[in-house]
This record gives sequence, C-alpha cells and structure tokens, in this order.
Amino acid sequence: MKGKFNGVFVPLITPFKEDGEIDFDGFEKILNFLTPKVQGFFVNATTGEFTSLTLKERKKMMVFVKEVIGKDVKLLANVSSTSFKEVKELIKLAKELEYDAIVSPPPFYLIPNKEGIKDYFLSIARISEMDTIIYNIPLCTGYSVSVDLIREIALSEEKIIGVKATIDSLGYIKDLIFKVKNEREDFSVLTGLGFYLSSTLILGGDGGILAISHIAPDVLTSIIKNFEEGNLSSFRKNTKFIARLSDIYRFGTSFASSIKIALKLMGFPISTYVRKPLVVDDEEAILNIERILKELKIVD
Amino acid sequence: MKGKFNGVFVPLITPFKEDGEIDFDGFEKILNFLTPKVQGFFVNATTGEFTSLTLKERKKMMVFVKEVIGKDVKLLANVSSTSFKEVKELIKLAKELEYDAIVSPPPFYLIPNKEGIKDYFLSIARISEMDTIIYNIPLCTGYSVSVDLIREIALSEEKIIGVKATIDSLGYIKDLIFKVKNEREDFSVLTGLGFYLSSTLILGGDGGILAISHIAPDVLTSIIKNFEEGNLSSFRKNTKFIARLSDIYRFGTSFASSIKIALKLMGFPISTYVRKPLVVDDEEAILNIERILKELKIVD
Amino acid sequence: MKGKFNGVFVPLITPFKEDGEIDFDGFEKILNFLTPKVQGFFVNATTGEFTSLTLKERKKMMVFVKEVIGKDVKLLANVSSTSFKEVKELIKLAKELEYDAIVSPPPFYLIPNKEGIKDYFLSIARISEMDTIIYNIPLCTGYSVSVDLIREIALSEEKIIGVKATIDSLGYIKDLIFKVKNEREDFSVLTGLGFYLSSTLILGGDGGILAISHIAPDVLTSIIKNFEEGNLSSFRKNTKFIARLSDIYRFGTSFASSIKIALKLMGFPISTYVRKPLVVDDEEAILNIERILKELKIVD
Amino acid sequence: MKGKFNGVFVPLITPFKEDGEIDFDGFEKILNFLTPKVQGFFVNATTGEFTSLTLKERKKMMVFVKEVIGKDVKLLANVSSTSFKEVKELIKLAKELEYDAIVSPPPFYLIPNKEGIKDYFLSIARISEMDTIIYNIPLCTGYSVSVDLIREIALSEEKIIGVKATIDSLGYIKDLIFKVKNEREDFSVLTGLGFYLSSTLILGGDGGILAISHIAPDVLTSIIKNFEEGNLSSFRKNTKFIARLSDIYRFGTSFASSIKIALKLMGFPISTYVRKPLVVDDEEAILNIERILKELKIVD
Repeated sequence: MKGKFNGVFVPLITPFKEDGEIDFDGFEKILNFLTPKVQGFFVNATTGEFTSLTLKERKKMMVFVKEVIGKDVKLLANVSSTSFKEVKELIKLAKELEYDAIVSPPPFYLIPNKEGIKDYFLSIARISEMDTIIYNIPLCTGYSVSVDLIREIALSEEKIIGVKATIDSLGYIKDLIFKVKNEREDFSVLTGLGFYLSSTLILGGDGGILAISHIAPDVLTSIIKNFEEGNLSSFRKNTKFIARLSDIYRFGTSFASSIKIALKLMGFPISTYVRKPLVVDDEEAILNIERILKELKIVD
Repeated sequence: MKGKFNGVFVPLITPFKEDGEIDFDGFEKILNFLTPKVQGFFVNATTGEFTSLTLKERKKMMVFVKEVIGKDVKLLANVSSTSFKEVKELIKLAKELEYDAIVSPPPFYLIPNKEGIKDYFLSIARISEMDTIIYNIPLCTGYSVSVDLIREIALSEEKIIGVKATIDSLGYIKDLIFKVKNEREDFSVLTGLGFYLSSTLILGGDGGILAISHIAPDVLTSIIKNFEEGNLSSFRKNTKFIARLSDIYRFGTSFASSIKIALKLMGFPISTYVRKPLVVDDEEAILNIERILKELKIVD
Repeated sequence: MKGKFNGVFVPLITPFKEDGEIDFDGFEKILNFLTPKVQGFFVNATTGEFTSLTLKERKKMMVFVKEVIGKDVKLLANVSSTSFKEVKELIKLAKELEYDAIVSPPPFYLIPNKEGIKDYFLSIARISEMDTIIYNIPLCTGYSVSVDLIREIALSEEKIIGVKATIDSLGYIKDLIFKVKNEREDFSVLTGLGFYLSSTLILGGDGGILAISHIAPDVLTSIIKNFEEGNLSSFRKNTKFIARLSDIYRFGTSFASSIKIALKLMGFPISTYVRKPLVVDDEEAILNIERILKELKIVD
Repeated sequence: MKGKFNGVFVPLITPFKEDGEIDFDGFEKILNFLTPKVQGFFVNATTGEFTSLTLKERKKMMVFVKEVIGKDVKLLANVSSTSFKEVKELIKLAKELEYDAIVSPPPFYLIPNKEGIKDYFLSIARISEMDTIIYNIPLCTGYSVSVDLIREIALSEEKIIGVKATIDSLGYIKDLIFKVKNEREDFSVLTGLGFYLSSTLILGGDGGILAISHIAPDVLTSIIKNFEEGNLSSFRKNTKFIARLSDIYRFGTSFASSIKIALKLMGFPISTYVRKPLVVDDEEAILNIERILKELKIVD
C-alpha cells in the first residue's frame, strides 16, 4: 500500500540575486514551471540552503510558496533549527499556512543520545499536531538515525508519517520498508537521491524528495508511472537517464550550486549565486554540467 | 551489453564436520543441487571461510569442485592470501585446473597505498594470464577500493574483467557502470548482495555472486529472466522475496553460519559448524531463520 | 615559544532557570569564582549550548560577560552561525565590546569543499580584523579540518592566531605543532580536552580551552605551573586527577549537563537544566558524578 | 604499579635480500645492536610484515631470534593467523622456545561478533598457558577492540596480561589504565606509537612496543628513565625528538619501509626491500628520511 506522501516532491532551491538577497521573481518562475509536474514541494530544503537563511527569510519563503501554490500540490515545510524556540516558531507558521506536513533532520551540532533524538521528533509531532517526516541526511548532520530508532518513534506516535532518506544505502531503504512500513502501511518511505527512486519503488517504497526533480520532473514522474503500468523497458531507460543526469553533482561543488547552474542553462532567469559557506562554481563546472544536459537533450 | 561474466554465481560455503574437518560428502550434495540452477561457482569465497582454511585445504577445495563440476558451469577461484608466495601457488593451480577466472579482494591487514593496490591486481592478472575479478568487500578488508582506482586498473589491463562489489552503496554500483563498464563493455559488474541484484540489473550491471543463491537459486535466476523478458510484476515479487530472505543474516552471526543453518533446515545433510573465529549460532538463531524460511515456503 | 593565547580558558556554560530562560544571577557567581583562577573565558561555547540560543540571547551573553569581567582576563567570542549574516553581526559586537579574539568551528550542516572552508576562515579574520581561532570539533561538525588545511590558512593570514582542537588524536596536536606552530611561533595550539593538557604542553603546545576548568581551574593551572617549573611529580599527579575527573562525562549525557551537575554539587545556586535537544540527566547520573567529586575531594 | 611487561620493546622488522628472501645476516646485526638497549623483542610484528611471510618463514624467525638472543631480553611472539590451525602451531612453537609471551591482534578479514573476539583471546591464552597480550591495531584489522571488551576479557582470565595499543587515541590509553589496569595492577598498557610513549607513562601506563625503537632505542629508554627520575626537562626534550623522528613515516609508504630505509642510512648492511603488497619506496622518500635523520644527528 502507498504511504500518505508518495510520488515526486521538489526540495526547492532558494535563488539569490547577485547581491545575495532572495530572488523571488526567479523563484516564482521555477515554481510555476514545476507545479503541474510534481506531487509537492519541500520548502527550506537542504538544497534551498535553509541553514544559510535567517529565520525571517525562512518564514518569507514559506509564505511566498503558499501564496503562489495555494492547494495545487502538497506542501512540506522544514522546521529544523538548532534553537528549539525557532523550531516552535516555524511549526506555528506551518500550521497557520496549512502546510501538509512538517519535516526535520535530527538535531545537529549538539547531538543528543537516542532518547534526545526520540524526544525531539515526538515533541515536534505533538506540538504541531501535523504529519511529521523524519529527514535522515548523515552527510550534513554527521550521523545516521538508525532504522530501529525510527521504528520505535513511528510506532509510538502516528503523526510520524514517513522518512526522507538521503543516504547511499539500499539496506537502509530495505530496512525502513521491512521493519517500519510493513507495520504501518500509511508510513511513507521517500528517498532523497534521484538514482535511488527506482530501487525504492521496487522494494516497496513510496517515492522521493529529489533535488534532480528541478531539472527533470517529467522523467521522475514517468518512472513512477512506468512502474505502476509494468513498463519495464521505459522504467529502465528513465532510470538510466536520471542516473546519468545525477553526474552533474560530480562537477558542481554542492547540490544547490549544481541545480542552479542547470536551471540557468535551461533558460530560467536566475543567478548561480550560493551563499557562504557554499562556493560559487566556476566556468569549468558550468561547461561540464552543460555537456551532460546536452548529452541528455535537456538543452540544445 | 553484457559483461563476460554474467548471471548468478554461488560463493560456495565450506561445510565442516563436527570435528572441524571439511565435509566433502555434504559439499558434493550441495554442488549437485546447485549446478543445474546457476551460471557458476566461486570457490574459497568469504562465505566459504577461505581465511580459516590452510593453503592445503584451499587447494583441495579447488580440485574437488573441478572434479565434481567439470565444465558444466563457470568456475572462479579466490587466489587471495596475505602471502604473495601463496597467491602465486593458488594462481598456478587455478590455471592447471582450467578455472574460468581468478578473483581476489585487495590486500588486507598490511594495506598499501594506491600504487600498491594497483600493482597487486596487475600482478595477479599478468602472472595468471587469466580473467581477473576485483573483489571489493570493505566489511572484511577495512577499506573500499575506489571506483576511480578500479577504472585506472581496468583501463590498463584487459584481463581485469570485472568487479564483485560487496558493499551497501548503490552509488558505487552506478559509478562502476558509468565510469568503467561504459568504456569497456566486456567488463562485468557483479553485486555481492542478494537484495542488490535487481537494482544492479536496472542500472546496467551483469548479475551477482550471491551467498543467498545457496538457498534460492531459482528465484535469483528468475529475477534475471524477468528482467530480460520485461516482466516487471514478477521482477518485483521476486526482488521482495530475496529482500525478505536476506533477513536470515540478521539472526545468524555470520554469512557462513546463516547459510549453513538454512541449508540444514532445507534438508541437506550438513553441520552448522563454522570455524573459529566465527561463532556457531545457537538454537534461537536457528528458530528465527526457520521462521523466515517457512514464511517464504522454502521449508514446510 | 608561547603562542599569543596560552594557559587555561573556560568555555563557559549557559546556566538556565527551570523555565529554560538564561539564569544570569547564577552565571555571575560562576564568573566571579573563575575569574581569578584562569587566563580567560570563551563565550557561547559548545558547552554553553550556543546553538540552542537565539541570536539575541547570544548577544546578551557576550555583553553580560564583558560587563562582569571587564579587562580582568582575556575574552574570546564564538561567532559561528550557519547564517553568515549572523556571523557578521556577532563579529561586529565582539569588536565593539573589545573582545580579545573571535573563535569559530568550520561551517557545519552545509559543508563546503576545502576552498569554502578556507574562504570562511579568511573572511571572518579579515572582516573582523581580530585575532581568530579555528575551532576543530568533529564530534559536532561531523568532519575534521585537516592540519594541512589549517597550515595553508594560517600561513596566508596572520590574524589566524591559533586552533582549539577538540579531538581525541595526539597525532593531530603533534602535527599542529610541527607543521604550523613551528613556522609561526605566535600561533597557539590549544586542546579542548582536559586530559590532553599535559600531553599538549609536552609536545610544545600552549594550553587549553577546557570545560573541566569550571570544576577544577586550580588543578589545570597547576599543571601548567608544574610544567614550567619542571615538577614532574606534581605534573603527573595533577594530570591523573584531571583524567579521573573527566570520567564525569561518562555519566552525564552531554558536556553541558555533566558540568552543570558538578557545579550544582559544588554548591553553585544553578539548575542542571539543559535545553532541547540535550537531555536533562537523571538522579543516577547525578549520583555517579557525585561519587567522582567525592573521591577527588572536590565535594565532601 | 608497573605491569609485568614494561619498558621499551622492538617490534622487529624482517629484512629481505633483493630477491625477496629473508636476510638473516643483516637481521642478526640489527638484533645485536638492539639487544643491550631495550627490554625485549616482538617477533613477527606488523613492522615485520608477518602477514607476508609463510608459516614456515614465521617459525624460522622465531627460532632464529631465540637462538641469537637467548634469555638476554624478553621475547614476545605474534601467533596471529586467520587460520586457527596455524595459530595453534605458532603457540606450540612459542611454548617450546620458551618465549615470554604471545601476542595477537584480534581476528581480521572474517570479523566475529564480540563473543567471537572474546572466545579467540581466551582460547589462545588457555591453549598456550602463556602470558597473552592483546594487540589492538585498527588501521590493519579495520576495527578497534573496545576497552570495555578488553576489560571483560582481562577480568575473566589472568593470563591476559596486557595490551599493545596501536591507535591514535589518548582516550583509549586513558581508559585502558582507568578501567582495566586500575583493577589489575600486573596488567601492562603498552603503546604502539612512539610519540605516545611519554603521554602513556604520565597517565600511568607501562611503556611501548615501538617500531621507532629500531632507530632510537636509547632515546626511548631515556624517556622512561627521565620519567622515573623526575627529569622533566630531558623528558620533554626526548619526547620532542621522538615526535620529530616519527615524521619519517610521512615519507615512507609503510612503517616497514620507513624503518628499513632509516636503518640502511644508519649503516646497517640491509636492503630496503619490502614484500608485496607493500611498495618499495623511491629515492625521494629516502632523501626525505635522510634529511630528518641528519637534522636529529642520527646520521652525519
């Protein structure tokens, strides 16, 4: 059975102008391009450089996306902050704006023991009374939330509705499905890596929150359609397309930068600016990314 | 295009009698059961506890398998030893016995720099003049041979014909395919993890050398057939079967022990003995593994 | 030769009242107790739960410490934030308040490549025009800033004046001294681990920024005195004292909590409250910590 | 109190001739040079490339050292093999030759659970009825034996007499002393890293089994003497000497190669040959190592 959140979600970038301020005009064009193509948006994502934004800017992003999108697709808000006071402010806003779910990585920098991690997720689920998605991204937080701990959390609070797993481990995805989802069918197993989408579906998962969906939303939703219709040949072809497209990350120095470069090459009127501490990539990175987009006929 | 070695290979266990000596009778029954069902055998595998055998015992195993199997399926021999003198003896025997390929993990315990790893693989390929498969198994060796290094090795010596990747990283499989196989079509990308077989195929890989094939050889070869015939529904069903079956490893304390327990439960006349330093599992492990085999109707 | 910052510095806790708000009264008592005993204070430290404070609270802490301490000892301010806008605000305040140096861990959560890390530290040193200390704490940030990178940064900007190394690796301390300090004598090598102080001094380092100095400031400064006077017998006795005292961290679930429990046991009128995501420790932890303090005659 | 094995022990290299065979003549000269200067020898050490030797060669080494040394200093034998049959043969020989202790790293390649590691060490201690030293060297085995597990093993079998800890973690040394040695005073805590010797002594440890003692045995034993006599100034000077000398490992690609190069530069009539998989270092490495030896006036 499908989890409550399924399909393809876009973890939105935050476009900046050359002076470093948020470029809402460019952002709106990207939102309008993507809305008809995907199941939902994840606001203040890692790809959106949420940790580089001030609290005020993060709130503005949440308000802006809601105003542009309304109820056309599902909206998820990242409520993570190292300050729990700020977490509560973000939850409050997500509720007021009627977001469909809140999302958070586990605490980072000050990393508590298991009890503290469990308490964190139960607290945000109970304070918000909203659907809550655990976001495991060890590359950023420095540690992985174990499947056994997620199981314990998900079985004690039904508002814990799913996981975004941004981790290169098919064993992790498999265990989420066999140890958690098999006991709670509404639970959503979503990958955060484009080239994992097909494998996630085959094992019984629900979809993905995928930065690469900025660039190829149609191909990703086709993979899900191919899977449901049993079209293995297209499923395979589209999977390889996404695997190849993911090579843009080998050339950009961050997810955010690679996606911004690709979008600009595709004609969106945005800058490739990323905020410190990320690095604005050079011409060579742009040429390499362009080469891949051309090979895949995403640009001419 | 398919690599030279493709399909399902069995990394053979070494059955022991209760006194710790090799049980060739029990072994022969397993070989006869498996031969018609798979594409080949890997002798002195990690699952075969090769490091726990003396050099003499390893040679006996190579001779015995050859005598029983002849040319019915492909035969791969593990020539790894920390002593390069012994490596050369094993290569010599593999050549005499007309094995189809030699296989080796990278040097372990004394771990050289990249140049030393490259030299090791080029040396065994050139000394043997046989097809040579690099066996990446970081769980045992303590480190991973990078795809970039494998690429460098494979592009300088055509006898380096493939990789057995026993690593829980789909990114690694993807990179092997996109960075190595895409430049040498005869190169074989083989997974060492049962639940990776389907994902490996979808991304363009060639098959697997899979301990779980002792237990469910038919299901694994069906996955390959389903894939080639475009039968997504069976492909998916069989993939989930193998993913669930892999749970036996959660209960046994080693691959070797888990497989031996399962084979014994399936009626093969072997002991569940494993040599030190591995641990002979207790009744509880056996009951848990039996439960999974019953659930999957492998045993009644 | 001694680095510019040497001796014993206290990475200050942030005491909270039971309602979670900062307890400035309790804090002042701790400051007054410590001021005559140490070389300086590090404000908004990891032990001070700086990531759990709002920007406003962090500024208050900086102002309050300056008001209480004046110029009695050296003052270091942590200017780290994931938002570079906030970093700049904190730098501005540190400058206005005439802090002696700024300190920062490398960027965390969004982790840039080497170029981005270098740019981060050069930027804060150049914007502030203040002495700048690199704070390596892989347990929190998820990665270690390599000595080679620190060398590169320190040799390109003289305002980069030292390192606080909170890492259990004597090789790291040794390399900092042999690769960096040996080329820039004013450079300070400070450990962040109490039981490393003696080893750091022997290898040629300058001191430490040590949470345990809340509890035993005299013993730590004695170690430095013993070292300078060549009193090996006291040096050794005091080193073992601190090593034993460090065992309090085995019982508390965080540095902050362990220190607060110990201070309360010593009679300071503070609560053991720590903010989420850290966990307030239970009675058992308190009893274990008390046992150690009694053994060492820190409390009766 | 001192552990049963204390002072400076040499983990002997195995010199090879240019054809790769063991050079017993060169070896004897090194033994004669070192015998009057140290407390003992460790035969078939990691620095001795024991995994690159055949069983027969390892036995020859044990016999040869015993013949040359007799009872002049203590002799420790490494009985480790991945094959437990070979472990038992090596134990038998060590007993016959009246070695003072056996030493072994934990099982590698096939890595058992904790129960299997415990069983391994208890088995070799009980089969041998000899003093047994646990050798923790995660760089080679891929994992660390935890102090808690060592504690459990040492408290269940009095023949487990000490640990050689080749790990860059002062916390590990501290915990060995506080958690194990403090409950069994005869227990020996020996570091495997030259620049850790002083810190190990200060915290209450017993000495080291140190490859660098091939090159500077006098300085290492002086450190122990300085420590016992309370001569902090010499203690410090000698510590820095060893820390600097350890830099030879930055230029050689292995411990074995670096030590052989240094010995040859010091005038010993040996080759710098190391067996595969290690790499024979080039002229540049030799020049760099020579530079350090000259700086320290070990060679002219």
